[in-house]
Amino acid sequence: MTTNPSNQLWLYDTTLRDGTQREGLSVSIEDKLRIARRLDKLGIPFIEGGWPGANPKDVQFFWQLQEDPLEQAEIVAFCSTRRPNTNAADEPMLQAILAAGTRWVTIFGKSWDLHVTTGLKTSLEENLAMIRDTVEYLRSQGRRIIYDAEHWFDGYKHNPDYALQTLEAAVAAGAEWLVFCDTNGGTLPQEVTQIVESVIGHLSSMTNDQQQRTIPQIGIHTHNDSDLAVANAIAAVMAGATMVQGTINGYGERCGNANLCSLIPNLQLKLGYSCIGEHQLLQLTEASRFVSEVVNLAPDEHAPFVGRSAFAHKGGIHVSAVERNPLTYEHIQPEQVGNLRRIVISEQSGLSNVLAKARTFGIELDKDKPEARQILQRMKDLESEGYQFEAAEASFALLMYEALASRQLFFEVKGFQVHCDLIEGKESTNALATIKVAVNGQNILAAAEGNGPVAALDAALRKALVNFYPQLAAFELTDYKVRILNGHTGTAAKTRVLVESRSGQLRWTTVGVSTNILEASYQAVVEGLEYGLLLHSQAEAALRVSS
Amino acid sequence: MTTNPSNQLWLYDTTLRDGTQREGLSVSIEDKLRIARRLDKLGIPFIEGGWPGANPKDVQFFWQLQEDPLEQAEIVAFCSTRRPNTNAADEPMLQAILAAGTRWVTIFGKSWDLHVTTGLKTSLEENLAMIRDTVEYLRSQGRRIIYDAEHWFDGYKHNPDYALQTLEAAVAAGAEWLVFCDTNGGTLPQEVTQIVESVIGHLSSMTNDQQQRTIPQIGIHTHNDSDLAVANAIAAVMAGATMVQGTINGYGERCGNANLCSLIPNLQLKLGYSCIGEHQLLQLTEASRFVSEVVNLAPDEHAPFVGRSAFAHKGGIHVSAVERNPLTYEHIQPEQVGNLRRIVISEQSGLSNVLAKARTFGIELDKDKPEARQILQRMKDLESEGYQFEAAEASFALLMYEALASRQLFFEVKGFQVHCDLIEGKESTNALATIKVAVNGQNILAAAEGNGPVAALDAALRKALVNFYPQLAAFELTDYKVRILNGHTGTAAKTRVLVESRSGQLRWTTVGVSTNILEASYQAVVEGLEYGLLLHSQAEAALRVSS
Repeated sequence: MTTNPSNQLWLYDTTLRDGTQREGLSVSIEDKLRIARRLDKLGIPFIEGGWPGANPKDVQFFWQLQEDPLEQAEIVAFCSTRRPNTNAADEPMLQAILAAGTRWVTIFGKSWDLHVTTGLKTSLEENLAMIRDTVEYLRSQGRRIIYDAEHWFDGYKHNPDYALQTLEAAVAAGAEWLVFCDTNGGTLPQEVTQIVESVIGHLSSMTNDQQQRTIPQIGIHTHNDSDLAVANAIAAVMAGATMVQGTINGYGERCGNANLCSLIPNLQLKLGYSCIGEHQLLQLTEASRFVSEVVNLAPDEHAPFVGRSAFAHKGGIHVSAVERNPLTYEHIQPEQVGNLRRIVISEQSGLSNVLAKARTFGIELDKDKPEARQILQRMKDLESEGYQFEAAEASFALLMYEALASRQLFFEVKGFQVHCDLIEGKESTNALATIKVAVNGQNILAAAEGNGPVAALDAALRKALVNFYPQLAAFELTDYKVRILNGHTGTAAKTRVLVESRSGQLRWTTVGVSTNILEASYQAVVEGLEYGLLLHSQAEAALRVSS
Repeated sequence: MTTNPSNQLWLYDTTLRDGTQREGLSVSIEDKLRIARRLDKLGIPFIEGGWPGANPKDVQFFWQLQEDPLEQAEIVAFCSTRRPNTNAADEPMLQAILAAGTRWVTIFGKSWDLHVTTGLKTSLEENLAMIRDTVEYLRSQGRRIIYDAEHWFDGYKHNPDYALQTLEAAVAAGAEWLVFCDTNGGTLPQEVTQIVESVIGHLSSMTNDQQQRTIPQIGIHTHNDSDLAVANAIAAVMAGATMVQGTINGYGERCGNANLCSLIPNLQLKLGYSCIGEHQLLQLTEASRFVSEVVNLAPDEHAPFVGRSAFAHKGGIHVSAVERNPLTYEHIQPEQVGNLRRIVISEQSGLSNVLAKARTFGIELDKDKPEARQILQRMKDLESEGYQFEAAEASFALLMYEALASRQLFFEVKGFQVHCDLIEGKESTNALATIKVAVNGQNILAAAEGNGPVAALDAALRKALVNFYPQLAAFELTDYKVRILNGHTGTAAKTRVLVESRSGQLRWTTVGVSTNILEASYQAVVEGLEYGLLLHSQAEAALRVSS
């Protein structure tokens, strides 16, 4: 048993598995890949990708990561122990795990005698064999094992001797990590402290006695049913745990999992543990919003550290005090986690953000020239209308080119009409769109049908433009997301549409906002085509220069 | 200094003062009165009503409560100490406090030397005098005093001697409670434990030495900036605090205050403290939703203890286990806080889920009769098309009635047309919808405009039906959510729409799916109206029976 002299912690993200248990959250394989790559960039060392044995679709996700691996993170496959009275080698779930082809596998098993006898309906002895066999079999197939002890705290409270035997079985079979799961989320911090300390003591003496080759490290996996998930994880770390499991934005079943967006800054900035690089911590807020965007859930504005209101200040005295000395009203500097202080009444400038963002498009803006402030102002105006440029960088680039008077005019939409007709009992509803576009001073009218109004609009637009820009034929709309902004006004609410487009390997995202969902969609679709044409013309220009 | 042998805790609610600092939350005097009366019924002993010195409107709120007092709670007025270099008796803020006419007053003062010198710009000595004078003056006017030590933990960490002097000043002047405020929300639980224990030790020796008549009790007031507000309050209680300040639903500035809806069950059910009556605890979920209703914020479905998802279970094995022995998957019984176990209807659902779900609608299905399997099959078919009944329980209920051949036919939509026309440069795009509906064999045609196609459709439908069902006028569409199912097919993807409707306190959600976003919206809107009519007719039938 090692203590933690280096202060290094290993983060283990389970957004893609436990996080997706949240009611109302569902993700495509493409979404999962985008999130995995973002977490990889954030410096999370372990990313749990899914449970291929329960969810056959997950296998494809792991295969795609084999084709095009992550940069630094270990992608982990998750599975239960074998079922009672089977052979591990014959267990289809474990074959699915091997097919996923990951180096690391997380196996969860029962710690609580009650769950063994009434849930699994098997003997306590057989449960120990299930743990041992499963870990041993996967070790024999070259996998490294993280063992999740399900219902650890409840199990230990009811029958500590048996609970410890389950851990011993996992360790003897070669598990490298033991993770204490507060599966029902009912444990209090002082119980966590006490149990983790006492179990670490027991394991140390056990491994010393038996001269185990494998010395396990301890992890913690908490749920937020008592509003204590973050506190419980911190308590376990302070008692000696070195792996912290959680999810981005605390997504998870019921009340969610421990929120990594709260845990990382607490552990790293306040308690001095080392979790991710300092430059990566600066991306925390952006990563949180990226994930909420991809899973299509509104970000929690009041979320600690990363919420839009987390460093919002109201009231005159308060504001001038915080501007004189932020320490007086802020527990950390918002910039440390990539967030911003926000003065609620008077908008606070984020010029440095704009400059940084422009740089990602290869544009060096001069902060003393008026263009930079104009871009900021335009961005703020649009954001107050509901636009959002975090995920829609292509729309932001167009806005920048516009302000710099270098936006290329490929085409101009003069207007469109959409018509839908549904007759009850008829199988499908076709939509009809007509569009009027000007290219090089020439007006073109085109009409097209689609199996929905947005598809019809997209088809009409392409039909009008393809003779001028044949490269359009290769553009594909790969994703289309709709978010209602002010939900409480019902169907009269504002709608934000994000459209993701692709041409070969290139991908870009654009945004549109309107109370009319068709107009919002049209804006995003039109900018999507425009940005694609821009990318093509830039690529051609680059080719001309290099040849 | 008393310890807490009786395990009695005093709750102090500040929803009406600190809670209203939340961005986007605003309440009328009428709203505040409704909330105060609800909290009184819940058994909260101290309810902070406002700061009449800063908010003159608040005085009227206190007057109305003098006219028609609360049943058991003390209503408390809140104020800062007098300003530097003034007389307490001449301070208008303190006159406003006296005018409020409460028995109890909470006075907050500075504990942190930095805030005294750079915020108030006065001497450390004058700050002590401000605390002493203010408390003494209000005592001389017959008020009982709770002293809130602002920035207590930060102040104590920076200059413990001075921080203690501020407490001594308050105690010497007659404050009965000292409340430690973590104003910036940055303190960690172990720091709270350590500081509260050490300060209680100091105060005990001080009051023994000086033979103070008033023996102060200790309170805790925490904020959630580190996601630890609940843990910090619990830590303080375990270190000897006997008053717990917080807000309903954790409302408050930035990331919110300590959430009483989490604290009460943790303290009472898990730690054995006595906070409110057992029968009052049964009202906790309802009180939480009542307050969110009054302040017009959507309830947090994932809130610990009181959220709609807090005791939601997915998956067949899991569900049958929880029905056999709830302890296996629930940290408390949901009924203890007035919440409900909810069986989530999802992809993994088996027959036991359907039976359990039907029971929540008062329908006993026989699992051996074909209807139960038909419902499951129909549900699975629809789910494979992209429907999702997790959130759309009203649509599931309609499906059930359909299978049981007891779905009431209120109206039948024969068809609709939607037309949108956008001309570039024109400000807004109106949409026009026409609809054909049959009621009692009579065909009705109606047309309406809206600022988007769905709003137009909804308006046309209501226009067609309102003469037959005037109760429709009270239905409101409160939320509208759109999710694209197979994102990779772009704008031709399937769309799932969830519509939440309301009539008074009742809320229900319906779902629609189609490649055509308008058709999906139309399905959800139509079922939303149908289910509302069903609820009304059930309520009327119940009234007829009871009369």
